[in-house]
Amino acid sequence: MHETLAQLGEREILNRLKPFVAVGQIDDDTAQINPLGRELLINTDVLVEGIHFSTKTTSASDVGWRAISTNLSDLAASGVDQVLCITVGLVAPSNTPWQWVENAYQGMKEALELFGGELVGGDCSRGQQKLLAITAIGTLGPLRLHRSKAQPGDWLVTSGPHGLSRLGLALLSSDPKVTNKQLPLKLKTKAIKCHQRPQPPLQALKTLQKCKPRGMQWRVGGTDSSDGLLAAIENLCLCSGCQAVLYPSELPRAEQWPLGTHWDNWCMNGGEDFELVLSMPKEWANAFLKTFPSSRAIGTMKAGPPEITWNSGKRIEISKTEEFKHF
Amino acid sequence: MHETLAQLGEREILNRLKPFVAVGQIDDDTAQINPLGRELLINTDVLVEGIHFSTKTTSASDVGWRAISTNLSDLAASGVDQVLCITVGLVAPSNTPWQWVENAYQGMKEALELFGGELVGGDCSRGQQKLLAITAIGTLGPLRLHRSKAQPGDWLVTSGPHGLSRLGLALLSSDPKVTNKQLPLKLKTKAIKCHQRPQPPLQALKTLQKCKPRGMQWRVGGTDSSDGLLAAIENLCLCSGCQAVLYPSELPRAEQWPLGTHWDNWCMNGGEDFELVLSMPKEWANAFLKTFPSSRAIGTMKAGPPEITWNSGKRIEISKTEEFKHF
Repeated sequence: MHETLAQLGEREILNRLKPFVAVGQIDDDTAQINPLGRELLINTDVLVEGIHFSTKTTSASDVGWRAISTNLSDLAASGVDQVLCITVGLVAPSNTPWQWVENAYQGMKEALELFGGELVGGDCSRGQQKLLAITAIGTLGPLRLHRSKAQPGDWLVTSGPHGLSRLGLALLSSDPKVTNKQLPLKLKTKAIKCHQRPQPPLQALKTLQKCKPRGMQWRVGGTDSSDGLLAAIENLCLCSGCQAVLYPSELPRAEQWPLGTHWDNWCMNGGEDFELVLSMPKEWANAFLKTFPSSRAIGTMKAGPPEITWNSGKRIEISKTEEFKHF
Repeated sequence: MHETLAQLGEREILNRLKPFVAVGQIDDDTAQINPLGRELLINTDVLVEGIHFSTKTTSASDVGWRAISTNLSDLAASGVDQVLCITVGLVAPSNTPWQWVENAYQGMKEALELFGGELVGGDCSRGQQKLLAITAIGTLGPLRLHRSKAQPGDWLVTSGPHGLSRLGLALLSSDPKVTNKQLPLKLKTKAIKCHQRPQPPLQALKTLQKCKPRGMQWRVGGTDSSDGLLAAIENLCLCSGCQAVLYPSELPRAEQWPLGTHWDNWCMNGGEDFELVLSMPKEWANAFLKTFPSSRAIGTMKAGPPEITWNSGKRIEISKTEEFKHF
């Protein structure tokens, strides 16, 4: 009777909220509305201090930047054409220095200048911890990506490597796992940049649209990997009722990424990579892989229970770290 | 150099955020975008436990209801035609009972069923205190209300009485100021209802639109009185550069409202009344006053410094209670 949110966990909470939300909107990264005969995408994300960001490893301007990137990444993973506008709900303790707020807005501004969209309004209030609630609105392009549109026979493709943001966080927080290890400077620099200034996969989406083979339907299953690569694939499996098969040799490791279980784990579960994770016909996948340099084929979809296995048949369990436990 | 948000206060914070926000959007209750050749209104509100609501006096379903009413009241105060959709960012501590969340969503659902608009999506996360960040989108009707559109010579009109919500709060929290006083049952019942289930002034807006005298321009200065009647009038004065003159006998007191300084103060500064506060030509005002029974003429606007005076010339100071201090 008196279940708490922690006891339920995020997936069950979302399940129970389904009756309150217009049909079909809770399964995807964004909602879709059609106010005036044209489709708009709308997405709300909440970023909470201590859960989605730490002021120890993330400057205020990087928090602002990331808030925008997170949100636009969801819009990209649904097929946004043009980002229109953003509203910002800001909550912060009364003793927060003004400079922190200004820097956070500066970070948002820089991201919007690069990716499109105007900050048009919002609200602010004091509260016990810092928090940004961002709503972004964009127009829908020709390809509406849905988590539920994966099909058996599809190829699984990502728009880029995974794990870099997690490595960046480890470097910034002086995690002995990485400080005790000789890593190439180029890899370290890239990882820190990926963590501090992640990019939403808007360019990947544009390329994906452009390289659709002629005569083929506009059908791609898709989501973004903000909560980790495996979490993204699991969402595709659950929403589409398909099974994903991955190849250990084809994990989307970054260039110069070390080998080993621990590093593979960061690649699969690190999170905050903000890449597209796509399930699509082989022919379209091939066209995309040829055109978009950082993209990778990582596996296939087949009929079966909604789970992820290696090509050996062994089931892959998702490791959920505390960082991605939202309740 | 190291000013905190508390030192600045809400007005100065908003002033400093202006350079980050698209021109003209921070002065009004809502933002306006024109994505597809038609105007949309968009509004984000954050409701924080302990600041905007107390779980002692407000049930979860009333919190949900109020979150919607607050937001739609802002849309009404900008001239919404049809409420399209809502997204909800929910933050709550891990130990929050599921029942609280379900009831909050139930309250939102009931309000949306009555006032229009669909809940289409959102986000949820744990956090140290309960919080709802709501974004509502609607289409703009023929009359765009702006805080900056008041003019000298206008009549000041409200769509209904003020102070009831504050009285309701006092009754619910057993404030000795009201428990020691004989109050009519009808007034008490109405006050509690106003506090628990406030109504956005959508009907008042529709009537206002309908009774515009023929040939007159669509020009009304307006806002809502969510932060109190005087705060609303002050915003009209500041944004329009006019002076407001009020008549003590014409304060918009509710039926059977007691006389006295303390009661007048609740009427002027109680807050959360969610009525329209309008500055408009006399002819239009008269038509509205005749057609909309609860509406009241409370004063006039004149050229002068942006402040509020009694008709005696004495300046009226706004009393800001802790409840409406957002920083």
